Amino acid sequence: MHHAGGDLIDAAPKAAARLFGELRARGPRVHCITNTVAQAYTANMLLAAGGVPSMTLSAEEIGGFVARADALLVNLGTFDAERREAAEIAIEVATEERLPWVLDPVFVNRSEPRAAYARTLAARKPGAIRLNRAEFKAVAGFEPEAEPDGAALSAYALDCLSVIGLTGPVDVVTDGARTITIENGDPLMASVTAMGCAGSGLLAACLAVENDPFVATVAALLALGVAGEVAAMTAHGPGSFAAGILDALHGLKRDVLIQRARVV
Amino acid sequence: MHHAGGDLIDAAPKAAARLFGELRARGPRVHCITNTVAQAYTANMLLAAGGVPSMTLSAEEIGGFVARADALLVNLGTFDAERREAAEIAIEVATEERLPWVLDPVFVNRSEPRAAYARTLAARKPGAIRLNRAEFKAVAGFEPEAEPDGAALSAYALDCLSVIGLTGPVDVVTDGARTITIENGDPLMASVTAMGCAGSGLLAACLAVENDPFVATVAALLALGVAGEVAAMTAHGPGSFAAGILDALHGLKRDVLIQRARVV
Amino acid sequence: MHHAGGDLIDAAPKAAARLFGELRARGPRVHCITNTVAQAYTANMLLAAGGVPSMTLSAEEIGGFVARADALLVNLGTFDAERREAAEIAIEVATEERLPWVLDPVFVNRSEPRAAYARTLAARKPGAIRLNRAEFKAVAGFEPEAEPDGAALSAYALDCLSVIGLTGPVDVVTDGARTITIENGDPLMASVTAMGCAGSGLLAACLAVENDPFVATVAALLALGVAGEVAAMTAHGPGSFAAGILDALHGLKRDVLIQRARVV
Repeated sequence: MHHAGGDLIDAAPKAAARLFGELRARGPRVHCITNTVAQAYTANMLLAAGGVPSMTLSAEEIGGFVARADALLVNLGTFDAERREAAEIAIEVATEERLPWVLDPVFVNRSEPRAAYARTLAARKPGAIRLNRAEFKAVAGFEPEAEPDGAALSAYALDCLSVIGLTGPVDVVTDGARTITIENGDPLMASVTAMGCAGSGLLAACLAVENDPFVATVAALLALGVAGEVAAMTAHGPGSFAAGILDALHGLKRDVLIQRARVV
Repeated sequence: MHHAGGDLIDAAPKAAARLFGELRARGPRVHCITNTVAQAYTANMLLAAGGVPSMTLSAEEIGGFVARADALLVNLGTFDAERREAAEIAIEVATEERLPWVLDPVFVNRSEPRAAYARTLAARKPGAIRLNRAEFKAVAGFEPEAEPDGAALSAYALDCLSVIGLTGPVDVVTDGARTITIENGDPLMASVTAMGCAGSGLLAACLAVENDPFVATVAALLALGVAGEVAAMTAHGPGSFAAGILDALHGLKRDVLIQRARVV
Repeated sequence: MHHAGGDLIDAAPKAAARLFGELRARGPRVHCITNTVAQAYTANMLLAAGGVPSMTLSAEEIGGFVARADALLVNLGTFDAERREAAEIAIEVATEERLPWVLDPVFVNRSEPRAAYARTLAARKPGAIRLNRAEFKAVAGFEPEAEPDGAALSAYALDCLSVIGLTGPVDVVTDGARTITIENGDPLMASVTAMGCAGSGLLAACLAVENDPFVATVAALLALGVAGEVAAMTAHGPGSFAAGILDALHGLKRDVLIQRARVV
């Protein structure tokens, strides 16, 4: 694993700040195929950051929605026939239209059929894949007890030709050539359902306004982590925190993002 | 377009205050066919105002739920076979039982099949249709670039025999003969997913307790706009605002509604 | 009805405090078959208390999810073919694996097909059934006008071999032999959608860490009632209350639970 050099690390927070300014200015349309648990929070996170979410799954109309969108999210939580048909059409249209898309293989570590399906989607070159460590091991074919290192993550990114955004107490972003670690965030993020799913939606919005998917992925995870820290300052628990992170993302100041960034 | 006279305008805020008192006192049952993104927020808005929501889509039981309800909402967000079958049964029962119903043609501007379907429903005489400007143009057959004026809106209302509630920075309500403009609300309302959808649910509840659908539509949009202004006073962003508007609607005082109303 | 003796009543709050400590320490996996209105709030309540929710309904994978879970929730809100197929598989696996499960027969008083289906599930020995008074009458075969007393509730519990958690302004828990009444809670709980459904999810988590389903049911309803009282102290209405109850449950202190308990 070639860790990113000092220049890249220094540039990342400013690039993220610029990108979130773009996002507010341009209001990209993000079509989301996601599970029903995560839909409302994902839509609210996109709106808070300045994006325009849509969520239909209907085979009759999803092609039209994706064709007019600026990015696509494919989240596998709730793995049903309807969503798989929708994903098939949506990814085909996104590929034709050269639309960036994000794969979020939720809970593939809990279901082998879902992991197998995720592998077929990972092979279709999503711009980015966002997942946690257990999901990474399942989708990349490691045993649950394995402890894959940074080199394994980079190799997987090269293999998929996708940027990998591995989230957890510390986030790691790699495209195989470049790797950045983000130490922002708050433990309460793990106590709000759909936080990761919504983060994947935010990442899709970032891909819509930034050509380099590595920079977009760093920006999305960095901004979400900083928003989490800002929200935690006034939250009384996970309920007020869930609302607070939307508030923080909506009002996120350039200076706060840059000053709080802990990128290594 | 005949604009409403001064008497009607003067009477509207008081009529809205009376109607929301009725709503709390009577607790009307509102059956909602709506998209999964909007379900929870719609249910919470109905509960906050004093209504009793139900949301089943099952063909086996939706007829029974609608028959025992006081109003019906048909929202087209997420346009799937299950919801269309549910809508068919629900509208038939509502028509038989003379139950008022609201049509919310979400995102018809993004999907021609959805717009075509919305037109067939608009022809079945909903008590009210709530939509934004882009949706109005799509459902009424205007080109996206067209700028339909108040006369076009009135003509459409007369054509449908429905009250039209057009929402946006300023809301316009018309039944063809009478027109009122409501200048309440807050920009944060556009940053919360399902705000319009939930407003349509609230409108259905108002139709349940008020025989004149024009008065009911003015009341629903006015109360929501005022609740938005009250919520904005203490909100820190769209997350706390989404909760705050439920708080404000739940505690909405007669005097506050009347004093803050900006109806022209 | 044999009311619980003083010893049992004295012990209940401490048992609840111990059980919620266990829940945080062990983080049980709770698979939830629930309606789309309730999914996000149920997941957030489980996370707030320390549980790990999953929610898939896919026939292909639900068996695997349930087999690796520690408890199961079957909620009948939204009564559709997909959920019935999922419930069939899930209950079979839960029975085989001796996994405790909760039945929540939402709105059976509004739909006879749903009530009939609930009766077939109640016969399959859920660890606990959580419902309100109207739902109890429908599932137990009383007329809507009937006023079944405590003896009828106990008889039903004995008949099902399940613990009954009857919620309302006052909650009653019985397994037929033991009965406890819980006087905690706040009226705002009735103004938040899915509060009861989420409470059933919390109850499933309690069953996962406590062998006596009577104790688990008392603990779940007591903790939720106390969290409601704590949340009501700072809430401004149902929106902030919905978030506040998650905060309160997440931070619930042993002493607060014991001191506020009103168990008789």
